Amino acid sequence: MPLLLILSKHADAYRALLERAPLSQLTIVSAPNASDLPSSATDADIVLGEPSLIRDVLARLRAIKWVQSTWAGVEPLLDATLRRDYVLTNARGVFGGLMTEYVFGYLLAHERRILEKHASQQEGRWDPTPPGTLRGKQIGLLGVGSIGTALARMAKQFGMRVKGYTRASESCADVDAYFHGDARAAFAADLDYLICIMPNTSATRRLVDAALLNALPPHAVFVNPGRGTSVDEPALADALQRGRLAGAVLDVFQQEPLPPDHVFWRTPNLLITSHTAALSLPEDIAPVFIQNYQRFLAGAQLKYQVDFELEY
Amino acid sequence: MPLLLILSKHADAYRALLERAPLSQLTIVSAPNASDLPSSATDADIVLGEPSLIRDVLARLRAIKWVQSTWAGVEPLLDATLRRDYVLTNARGVFGGLMTEYVFGYLLAHERRILEKHASQQEGRWDPTPPGTLRGKQIGLLGVGSIGTALARMAKQFGMRVKGYTRASESCADVDAYFHGDARAAFAADLDYLICIMPNTSATRRLVDAALLNALPPHAVFVNPGRGTSVDEPALADALQRGRLAGAVLDVFQQEPLPPDHVFWRTPNLLITSHTAALSLPEDIAPVFIQNYQRFLAGAQLKYQVDFELEY
Repeated sequence: MPLLLILSKHADAYRALLERAPLSQLTIVSAPNASDLPSSATDADIVLGEPSLIRDVLARLRAIKWVQSTWAGVEPLLDATLRRDYVLTNARGVFGGLMTEYVFGYLLAHERRILEKHASQQEGRWDPTPPGTLRGKQIGLLGVGSIGTALARMAKQFGMRVKGYTRASESCADVDAYFHGDARAAFAADLDYLICIMPNTSATRRLVDAALLNALPPHAVFVNPGRGTSVDEPALADALQRGRLAGAVLDVFQQEPLPPDHVFWRTPNLLITSHTAALSLPEDIAPVFIQNYQRFLAGAQLKYQVDFELEY
Repeated sequence: MPLLLILSKHADAYRALLERAPLSQLTIVSAPNASDLPSSATDADIVLGEPSLIRDVLARLRAIKWVQSTWAGVEPLLDATLRRDYVLTNARGVFGGLMTEYVFGYLLAHERRILEKHASQQEGRWDPTPPGTLRGKQIGLLGVGSIGTALARMAKQFGMRVKGYTRASESCADVDAYFHGDARAAFAADLDYLICIMPNTSATRRLVDAALLNALPPHAVFVNPGRGTSVDEPALADALQRGRLAGAVLDVFQQEPLPPDHVFWRTPNLLITSHTAALSLPEDIAPVFIQNYQRFLAGAQLKYQVDFELEY
C-alpha cells in the first residue's frame, strides 16, 4: 500500500484534490514545509511537492521510489551532492495555455502600443498613432518543448512566421525553420520577437548573451518567461541602454525577488513581471500526478521523467 | 471603357496599387479631396474612396454606377437626402485580423494586469500578484459578421465560451449560444467580456444602454471597436463611476476626436484608443476593389453590397 508525502505550500489543496480522485490503495500524509513533517513521512514511497522543499528532506526518505515535482523546473534536486536513486518527474504539458496568454499579451501590448496609448490618455491627449500588427512578423522560439509548441500554434493563428532553436528535435509542424548548435546568429537574424523558454541546464546557461543579442535586429523585442539563468543580464541591460534592442519583457531573473539595486530597475524599455507568467496551480498539477500514479501502480513507465544527466 | 475616380486621402497609394494590378480597360483619375477634382471626374462610372469625401461630389457624378467605400462604415452616404441610384459596396472581410489583435490585446492586458504590473515597476516594486486567464471565461459578441466570426474563432483558441447577439443570423459555428431581439439581458448575464462590433444603423443606436450595462456582472469589461453611436455614453460613464462594471476599452465615440471636456477623460477604469483599432490600409482595401472590379466587368453581382434600407 503506497504512502504518499505531499510536501507543498499548497499541501491542503493537493490533499483535497487527491482525496476527491479515485486513487486506489493510496495513503496520504502531508505538510506545508519540512519542519512540520509527520514522523511517518520518512516511510513514503512517493513524494509530490516543490523541489525546494523536497531537497531538504530527501536524505531522510528511506523508501523513496518516485518524486513528482509540482514545478517544471527541478534545479534544487539536480545538485550533484544529492541522491539520484529514485525516479524524478516534473510538471509538463500544463503551462502551454498560461504561457501563451503571457507571451501574446505582451506581444500584442507592444504592437498595439497599449502602454503608450495609456500614457497619452493620462495627459488628456487624443493619440491616433497607428498600431503595428503581428501578421507577417517573425517569432523565434529558444526551445520548442510543450510550451514552445503551444506558442508556435498561436503564432500561426496570428499569421506569424516561426523559427525554432533546439538541441536536436524538429518535431513541431508549426515551426517554419529549425536551427541548432552554433547557428544562433542565423536563428536571431530578422526576428521581430525572441522568446526564451529553455529549461535551466548547464547547456542553456547564459545562452542569451551579447553575441545573440547583437545578432537581433534593433526593432526586436526579447521575452523571457523561461529561466533567469538563460540570460547574461549585464549584456541585456547594455543592449537596451544602447538601443540595440527595442525592448525586453522579463518574468525570471538570476536572483528573485529582483534586488532593489539591480540595473534592470533603471533599464529603459524593460518590463518586469515578477515571476507570474505561469504559476503552478494545484488544479492543473494534480491531474499530472493522478495520471502518473495510475502508471506507477501498473508498473508502467512514468511520464515527464527528468534525465539527471541532461538536467531536464 | 470604365472611368474610375479615386477620391481618398491615400489616393496616390491606391493609384500605385491599382496601376500595378492587371485591371483591363480601366482609366483612372484621382484626387486627395473634393476641391482638387479633375474636370473629367464627373464622367466617372466608378468611385473608390472615403464616404465622407464622396458625399460632397455625389450629386455631380452624372454617370456613376458603383461606389466602393474604403471604410466599413458608410454613414455619410446613407443620408436620406442623397441619391441612391448606384450600387454601394463597403470594405468587408479585411478587418478581422486587426480587430482580433486589438480585442485580444486588451483582453490579455486585463487578465495579465499589464498596466498594474507596469505601475508597480515604476515604483520599484516586485509585484507577484497572480494574473487571471481567458481560459473558461465568457465573451459576448454584439454583432457576428465577418469581424465577429474572426473574434469567435480566436476566443476558441484561448478556451473561452462565446455568446452572440445578432438580428437573426446564427451561422457562426464558434458561437456557443445565440440571442436576438429583446433577449439582451439573458445575453449579458454572466459575461466576462462584452464586445460591440455592430454597424451604425438606426437599429443599433444606443443599443449599449443602462439596461444592458446593468445586466452585466460587475467584473465584466466592455470593449467597443465598432461604432460610437452604439453606446449611451453617459450611462457607460455612470456604470464605471459606480463600479457597476470593471472596465471599458473604447476606440470610437459619438464625437471624434473626443472633446477635451468629455466625461470619459475623467472616468475610472476606462481606456481610450483614439479610433485606431482597425485602420483602412490601401494594401488591404485595394484587393477588395480589384476583386469587385473583375465582377463589375463580367456583369456579375458585386460583393459587400450595402442595403440602403438596412443601413449596412
